[in-house]
Amino acid sequence: MAYNLLKGKKGIIFGALNSQSIAWKVAERAHAEGAQMVLTNTPIAIRMGELDELAESTGSLMIPADATSVKDLENLFAKTMEAFDGKIDFVLHSIGMSPNVRKKIPYDDLNYEYFSKTLDISAMSFHKMIQTAKKMDALNEWGSIVGLSYIAAQRTLYEYNDMADAKAVLESIARSFGYIYGREKHVRINTISQSPTPTTAGQGVKGFNALIDFTERMSPLGNATGDECADYCVTLFSDLTKKVTMQNLFHDGGFSSMGMSERAMTQYNKSLECKNCQDNPLNVE
Amino acid sequence: MAYNLLKGKKGIIFGALNSQSIAWKVAERAHAEGAQMVLTNTPIAIRMGELDELAESTGSLMIPADATSVKDLENLFAKTMEAFDGKIDFVLHSIGMSPNVRKKIPYDDLNYEYFSKTLDISAMSFHKMIQTAKKMDALNEWGSIVGLSYIAAQRTLYEYNDMADAKAVLESIARSFGYIYGREKHVRINTISQSPTPTTAGQGVKGFNALIDFTERMSPLGNATGDECADYCVTLFSDLTKKVTMQNLFHDGGFSSMGMSERAMTQYNKSLECKNCQDNPLNVE
Amino acid sequence: MAYNLLKGKKGIIFGALNSQSIAWKVAERAHAEGAQMVLTNTPIAIRMGELDELAESTGSLMIPADATSVKDLENLFAKTMEAFDGKIDFVLHSIGMSPNVRKKIPYDDLNYEYFSKTLDISAMSFHKMIQTAKKMDALNEWGSIVGLSYIAAQRTLYEYNDMADAKAVLESIARSFGYIYGREKHVRINTISQSPTPTTAGQGVKGFNALIDFTERMSPLGNATGDECADYCVTLFSDLTKKVTMQNLFHDGGFSSMGMSERAMTQYNKSLECKNCQDNPLNVE
Amino acid sequence: MAYNLLKGKKGIIFGALNSQSIAWKVAERAHAEGAQMVLTNTPIAIRMGELDELAESTGSLMIPADATSVKDLENLFAKTMEAFDGKIDFVLHSIGMSPNVRKKIPYDDLNYEYFSKTLDISAMSFHKMIQTAKKMDALNEWGSIVGLSYIAAQRTLYEYNDMADAKAVLESIARSFGYIYGREKHVRINTISQSPTPTTAGQGVKGFNALIDFTERMSPLGNATGDECADYCVTLFSDLTKKVTMQNLFHDGGFSSMGMSERAMTQYNKSLECKNCQDNPLNVE
Repeated sequence: MAYNLLKGKKGIIFGALNSQSIAWKVAERAHAEGAQMVLTNTPIAIRMGELDELAESTGSLMIPADATSVKDLENLFAKTMEAFDGKIDFVLHSIGMSPNVRKKIPYDDLNYEYFSKTLDISAMSFHKMIQTAKKMDALNEWGSIVGLSYIAAQRTLYEYNDMADAKAVLESIARSFGYIYGREKHVRINTISQSPTPTTAGQGVKGFNALIDFTERMSPLGNATGDECADYCVTLFSDLTKKVTMQNLFHDGGFSSMGMSERAMTQYNKSLECKNCQDNPLNVE
Repeated sequence: MAYNLLKGKKGIIFGALNSQSIAWKVAERAHAEGAQMVLTNTPIAIRMGELDELAESTGSLMIPADATSVKDLENLFAKTMEAFDGKIDFVLHSIGMSPNVRKKIPYDDLNYEYFSKTLDISAMSFHKMIQTAKKMDALNEWGSIVGLSYIAAQRTLYEYNDMADAKAVLESIARSFGYIYGREKHVRINTISQSPTPTTAGQGVKGFNALIDFTERMSPLGNATGDECADYCVTLFSDLTKKVTMQNLFHDGGFSSMGMSERAMTQYNKSLECKNCQDNPLNVE
Repeated sequence: MAYNLLKGKKGIIFGALNSQSIAWKVAERAHAEGAQMVLTNTPIAIRMGELDELAESTGSLMIPADATSVKDLENLFAKTMEAFDGKIDFVLHSIGMSPNVRKKIPYDDLNYEYFSKTLDISAMSFHKMIQTAKKMDALNEWGSIVGLSYIAAQRTLYEYNDMADAKAVLESIARSFGYIYGREKHVRINTISQSPTPTTAGQGVKGFNALIDFTERMSPLGNATGDECADYCVTLFSDLTKKVTMQNLFHDGGFSSMGMSERAMTQYNKSLECKNCQDNPLNVE
Repeated sequence: MAYNLLKGKKGIIFGALNSQSIAWKVAERAHAEGAQMVLTNTPIAIRMGELDELAESTGSLMIPADATSVKDLENLFAKTMEAFDGKIDFVLHSIGMSPNVRKKIPYDDLNYEYFSKTLDISAMSFHKMIQTAKKMDALNEWGSIVGLSYIAAQRTLYEYNDMADAKAVLESIARSFGYIYGREKHVRINTISQSPTPTTAGQGVKGFNALIDFTERMSPLGNATGDECADYCVTLFSDLTKKVTMQNLFHDGGFSSMGMSERAMTQYNKSLECKNCQDNPLNVE
């Protein structure tokens, strides 16, 4: 079901890789709602991924750009405005990568060059993208920028490592730049804090499936899917949310406001009651 | 501009009084988006207000109900389901009143009967409304309930008095009941924390105009209007936000994420620099 | 080990019942730190409990008062100031009770008279106590008031029921009154959000032991005990925290900032891996 | 007045420059409470500052270290443990610097090398310091680490620039590492979010005096001073706060929980009423 919510709007989508990517689903959904788009990712990701398929199905242009490179971003915005023959209405930033996570380096043994890279790729790229857009006056008044975040920015999850710190900066940049871009061009900037989602990126994290099971049982509405996240993004790109800015918006079936659900506790309890599970008693492990 | 976002949906709107009311604007906006509605308020408010005008313009039914009376609420939901020949998809709760505020009783001299009334009218009515709906199975699966709140629930504003405590309970009820209604019927419950809005209710608060000026200068996008709040409500009633629940969502042009804006500081500074304003030096008042 | 942190200070402790009560431990600790105290609880609790034992061991006076009765509170503060021959420096409010919880009435079938009682006993009593103290000018400048809260005020825990809403009001009152009492008499008001603690009150909650196990494994430092809470209270009563006010302070071994720990996830995982535990698969229960 | 709260404890203080520094006051206060300390700062800061004066008055050792250099940190911890003939109980991190702020480069024209430096100096140094300590097993069990933060991590203040993002990472690191160091060695890690304080560092920010005036009038207890912050730090280093970890603790006279005070509003109002101040009407500037 589509509503023409984004009819006449033009956007850039950062970070689609394959059909599991949230960014991919956002592009499809925005297309269905009437938007025109440019899709972008790093040259390597474009070569290895299936982005041309998405470009075709949504009638989008594909422009490679390394989001950590201001030069690439300048080229991206220039080409996009040329292609659109006009300015941009919305941008999705769905980018995150930690070399420390990839190389399984634990948080108390961080490689600091990698840490800097994590921050650069996953958070400073958000600033670079916005600053470049603003300098080039690439966004229409009342435009909307959304970054994808995760609750690790507020609460520590083991194995999430330095990505937690990166998400904290990402959300901070949304506030800091949301103030400036808002007062000068009425552009709003928000982050969506999404349920853990079994994308290619998410699946790399150790213990991810057990976490997904836990959050599913904790969340009264269950985990939010990528498709549902795409629906939510569309509302934030639309003209119906013009005064929402500098917010981190949880899209997680209620998980963020749960302390303990009956379903999760019941499941947890099994591990305490089951004899086979008693080999790891509390205070002894 | 309308999108048919609520086509086929049925709702109840609590708390519209006159054309300045946010609830009034929500009803108009939801109507434009294709919804059918029942409007409700206390019998007195209906007699004194202009609700019949809204009922006519939106083709809505008008059913009086005191939201603190479970009996009235039962009657309301029964009549509504009868009129709709079916269940309800969304509910707006826009109700708040403090006898202590009305009678200018300060927070350190509260009348406790009045305090209880403040809580009953402004917060427990939210619970009663939801509990009644759930007991009567009056809401469709994936229905959406929204309550209107204010940042006083998190940060103290002088003169806002016991309404701050009432808003804190309101938001807590949204979480507590959001868990239960979510897990059992997938109904989501959220609150919108709206900019100060010059409604009939808001205007009663002392110093309200200066506050409006301050928040206007603090918020990068300016205060959110009632009309914009109606737009936002529509997204929360729509099928595009199905996994957003138990959240308090700031709709305030960025105010909640501001510490100090240049515009507000510049204005404040005038009071420090202006000689006529120096009659009230700091630490001496 | 004692430091004379409260030497010369006088306080009132609300809510000690027996040696498991946090309030009991606070009284002992404050006594060890040099404070003089009045202990208070309802006449019934005093008759049924062992408060006289604590009064003796700490050299405290015992004055019965129902904290929901302004008259009782007036009597309490009058008698206390008389006994101390002076004003009071600190107050602990450790009071909470829900008739709905006691009678096992679920949150979607609340008895509203009981709900009002829950709020009156567990939250409005905090306001009544502070308002009475302020009206009688019973507190010294830079005095300190602490209320005991729980994370249910922010995140829903099943079975915690309307106590969650009561804690939300309690914390709101700390802010609202903290502003007024602070600006006028420099009295600070805070709440401590304590780990679940196996007191007489806590043990009534269903599934409490499993919850304690879970929070123990989630919290990097383990659950905070009542004795540790007493230590923390002492710092908040001391002159070393004079500018901390209107805050809700988590004292929970880190639980509130955790999304998922390895210890808790490992335990949870057992329930998924163990064959005997597979009788309750996700999405089927 | 001293209590021997830190008797027998050993600590390292990062970031004291002159007698206005908060770190300076913390060192004095910790000394008065019985602690032994090592003072550290960059070689340049030590040469230009008056740290030897503090070292003398508190009987502390002075060991230069650039907190962004792991090598320097290793040397610092090695020398410190040698000097103490044992491990360390507490650490204060009071370090922050933004080349962008220094060079008056606005947030929408950031130099990204400088941005990286801001993050490295003001936040990653916190991680480096903790990681080095943990690898060298330099802290005693139940040790305490405190970093100084500012409310800009949550709410945007104009001119605070990329320091806001740095403080967001700092607080995130406190959580992320607080989990790991807590579960393994019971070391707790917290940040104190302090009122704006007229230190040498703070005074560089444009409009700082007007901001100080505003926060003074907003905070019911007034701004917290550096001396008061030192008192508060002492409680966090002491054994009385063992289960407080992964928290950001506001020490600000109540500012963080205020929406609007009567004092600040009255002052602001003057700027609206005064004729000379009307030259900058709202919506026209």
